[in-house]
Amino acid sequence: MLTGPKRTVYFTTGNKNKYLEAARIATTFQVKLKHLNWEKLEIQSQSLTEIASFAAKQAAQSTRKVVVAEDAGFFVQGLGGFPGPYSSYVFDTVGTAGILKLMRNVKSRGASFQAAVAYCEPNKRPICFTGTVRGSLASRPRGLHGFGYDPIFVPRQGDGRTFAQMSMNEKNLSSHRAKAFTKFCKWFASNR
Amino acid sequence: MLTGPKRTVYFTTGNKNKYLEAARIATTFQVKLKHLNWEKLEIQSQSLTEIASFAAKQAAQSTRKVVVAEDAGFFVQGLGGFPGPYSSYVFDTVGTAGILKLMRNVKSRGASFQAAVAYCEPNKRPICFTGTVRGSLASRPRGLHGFGYDPIFVPRQGDGRTFAQMSMNEKNLSSHRAKAFTKFCKWFASNR
Repeated sequence: MLTGPKRTVYFTTGNKNKYLEAARIATTFQVKLKHLNWEKLEIQSQSLTEIASFAAKQAAQSTRKVVVAEDAGFFVQGLGGFPGPYSSYVFDTVGTAGILKLMRNVKSRGASFQAAVAYCEPNKRPICFTGTVRGSLASRPRGLHGFGYDPIFVPRQGDGRTFAQMSMNEKNLSSHRAKAFTKFCKWFASNR
Repeated sequence: MLTGPKRTVYFTTGNKNKYLEAARIATTFQVKLKHLNWEKLEIQSQSLTEIASFAAKQAAQSTRKVVVAEDAGFFVQGLGGFPGPYSSYVFDTVGTAGILKLMRNVKSRGASFQAAVAYCEPNKRPICFTGTVRGSLASRPRGLHGFGYDPIFVPRQGDGRTFAQMSMNEKNLSSHRAKAFTKFCKWFASNR
């Protein structure tokens, strides 16, 4: 347990937009979140928690700072969770068109966006917080906002629009990443 | 450069069969290869060389031994190299059936198996050796031998049979892994 005045937490990500989204949430909990422009180490694992934990631990050890690292993925039930932790790579190679092609004649249309945020102090074990948005696959891409799999994902708690048919602000309010960061900030604000 | 009598090299792999295949090759070059049952660290990268190098370096540092680590993947040209470094995960989720589904209406049928073997001494930089087998995708799975993508891969230098239609011995003679290990052993035998 840290003592004394509130400590700054460094978010290790190469993606400035992810930092800005997280910082906006942190502010509402009076958590001071700074951007650590550090090339985080991503291991191969089927567990987002494991990937984020490893990255946070490695960054905390190397920089001697208190850090958070995040990992996220898109999980399609009918495809055994694919593309999961490798969502970026799969998006860059076969894309949303590939996902829809794989889904031909597959009945189950369930899908989810998941995120894990790992908090780590130097020489300590990481602590993880997760967020999930459940929904289903659209039959064809719809919408122009967002990125990645947003055009083919319809959140369950919504009006049938895909993530890409919502403004970034609207999507971020209930995103997997926002959920995980909110859990972390609540915990941090009351424990640290 | 190591001096004195020939040093033992430790192959870090959780897969006993990979070790046996590599040891068979090493023996023909009088290289002493031992099995290091060590859970190697696999990073996310699109480069097999980078993945194998990181694993070898991490194992060499942690165990203070002279090690080799290997990484391999199946690369489909018409899918932007997919599944590449994530071949195991993709095989476990969407499988060969998924690859063939993605290939519907894709003209280019080129594919390759690739392997990277990284050698590392403690406190040194890793040195890499690669092996590639070029070929094409079969229109449907054929053969019962081997594993993974073997039933849908037809090597270019062959008689039209898939890898899975060859005995393990026949396949191993010209496999990507054998090529990479042969390069390493030649180098090691003449330099160390």
